[in-house]
Amino acid sequence: MYYSSEKITDFTRTFFEKIGCSNKDANIIADVFVAAELRGIGSHGLIRISDHFELWKAGRLNTKPNMRITRETVSTAVVDGDNAPGMLAAVFSMETAINKAADAGTGWTACRNSNHFGIAGYYAMMALNHDMIGICLTNANPLVAPTFSISRLLGTNPIAVAVPAGKHPPFVADFATTPIARGKLEVAVKKGEKTLFGYVQDKDGNPTDDPDILRKDGAMLPLGGDREHGSHKGYCLGATVDIFSALLSGAGFGPFVPPSVAYLSPPAETNGKGTGHFFGAMRIDSFREADEFRAAMDLWIDTFRNAESAEGKPAVLIPGDVEREQEKINRKNGICLIPAVIDELNNIAGELDMEMRL
Amino acid sequence: MYYSSEKITDFTRTFFEKIGCSNKDANIIADVFVAAELRGIGSHGLIRISDHFELWKAGRLNTKPNMRITRETVSTAVVDGDNAPGMLAAVFSMETAINKAADAGTGWTACRNSNHFGIAGYYAMMALNHDMIGICLTNANPLVAPTFSISRLLGTNPIAVAVPAGKHPPFVADFATTPIARGKLEVAVKKGEKTLFGYVQDKDGNPTDDPDILRKDGAMLPLGGDREHGSHKGYCLGATVDIFSALLSGAGFGPFVPPSVAYLSPPAETNGKGTGHFFGAMRIDSFREADEFRAAMDLWIDTFRNAESAEGKPAVLIPGDVEREQEKINRKNGICLIPAVIDELNNIAGELDMEMRL
Repeated sequence: MYYSSEKITDFTRTFFEKIGCSNKDANIIADVFVAAELRGIGSHGLIRISDHFELWKAGRLNTKPNMRITRETVSTAVVDGDNAPGMLAAVFSMETAINKAADAGTGWTACRNSNHFGIAGYYAMMALNHDMIGICLTNANPLVAPTFSISRLLGTNPIAVAVPAGKHPPFVADFATTPIARGKLEVAVKKGEKTLFGYVQDKDGNPTDDPDILRKDGAMLPLGGDREHGSHKGYCLGATVDIFSALLSGAGFGPFVPPSVAYLSPPAETNGKGTGHFFGAMRIDSFREADEFRAAMDLWIDTFRNAESAEGKPAVLIPGDVEREQEKINRKNGICLIPAVIDELNNIAGELDMEMRL
Repeated sequence: MYYSSEKITDFTRTFFEKIGCSNKDANIIADVFVAAELRGIGSHGLIRISDHFELWKAGRLNTKPNMRITRETVSTAVVDGDNAPGMLAAVFSMETAINKAADAGTGWTACRNSNHFGIAGYYAMMALNHDMIGICLTNANPLVAPTFSISRLLGTNPIAVAVPAGKHPPFVADFATTPIARGKLEVAVKKGEKTLFGYVQDKDGNPTDDPDILRKDGAMLPLGGDREHGSHKGYCLGATVDIFSALLSGAGFGPFVPPSVAYLSPPAETNGKGTGHFFGAMRIDSFREADEFRAAMDLWIDTFRNAESAEGKPAVLIPGDVEREQEKINRKNGICLIPAVIDELNNIAGELDMEMRL
């Protein structure tokens, strides 16, 4: 079924109002959810509303948070998200980074005591309208084993970078530090298909193509796959994201990141508060006249877009191309939700006495 | 042959003095070269002195540079390296970032008009003695094809991050955004061995295990190897390093990075000046009491070091472990140079009327 982005926004905002968010906060959260759906990243879209509902029912999500800056310098801030939905803590933190950058040239916010925030790219892209480069990192539920290990110690810990251009649309990279996102394993399980070797390992650390291996004590591999192909570099990246997100902010690191689903218990012991994020904003004209930078970025994009493709391969993509094209299609045709998700959301709407149904 | 680090330092300093550097500058450069040798990264050590000699003879390296800050805010600076040896421009830029961070909480320097600077980790590690996290990125000669392409548009564009700990040695990640460093291909060529699939492609974009393929118009692959295993993420990383290093500073980007060897001509056209780097320094206590951070970092390191290894695999490594252990060995046993390099350096010493020989 296809829905307009307005309908999806209304539903999501109403849901978050029903579980206690202010209208303003519910609008902020809905905008992130709808951006994920429009950009074709449904794994971070309305499929996750039930997780929020279950966490809220279990008293594990604070929909009336008192988010605050607990420490700051002219270019930095630490935010305590007060266990808010991750989108609220992230928007507050990124706005703080942007405000710092306006004064100090760059701004950097480490956020603790937050939750799953959806797509990292959304927050990096907030910088674009301010003539700034945006950066966003987050840690996440531990599913990834460091090189040589069978212990799940890191999340898929994504990195997002948004860079404004001139005549061209912006460069927007947003990627997990693993070969694939976890959601793709779920899709393979649901389709009854095998996955590729190089994504996961079994509980003993052996290569496998079983997409359901995470339920059998297996682990995801860092970007690179195996040691010979540079998995230690993927591990370095995921580790850096964890350290910047959790250790600078005082969030739980690695195995101590709280689950983003209610059916998994929070870790028995922890060393920090909640999920951690790290945000950066760099004013372009701190470094160079903005017009000059934008022209150079256009030339960069032209150079890479005009690179020669191997025979039978598609054109070289600029990071952000795929999601932007998908957004055009989805704005025209509507956002497609699968029947199981529609049923789930309508059941939640019933439970909450929402008048609206999908 | 094995040499003491003092002998290697003396030789390198004397060489750079002979080609016009001040004693102070020659000492700075020698320290970076010797650090590479001590840390076991010989590919960035004395083997590259001949490249500097040839570039200098060709008038392509300025050993009496007037390096200067051309633009700044409280947290940022742009440095013009005046075509200096990369080590000088990098140390000046990283010192600038550290000074900015002391005042503003963080400091960020983009550097243009520089050259090959050796090991990125050296500059990231400069932050450690200041209770700061250090970051260093650089672009490099184009050898890497973006996903789907046969055009060599990116360098191996490394990322280095150094994070101080408490009782433990620091976390020091320093890695190319490709599955392997270029030097490893050279080693395989010299040994007459094949390399692994997943590192390089031939001129048509087909997989190959020929380590000499770069001389046959082939290309290196981004971290991830192929599209299915996430090479588009490696491409995103390499692209981000290129943009931060070149477009913020006004250096040459991607295919316009000047070669670090004299036998390759500079690009006929360019859009910026020289090689570009990007440096960051973040004062830990901008975010958290330094003691508290260091204790958390120790716990992070303990957690990862104590992860369970797969059967038959070595212990999980903390980034920096390998290089630190190698440094201990090399400080004890001396630095090993291969005969071909020793001959080359002694010939250079003769040409420059240096009294010293290796």
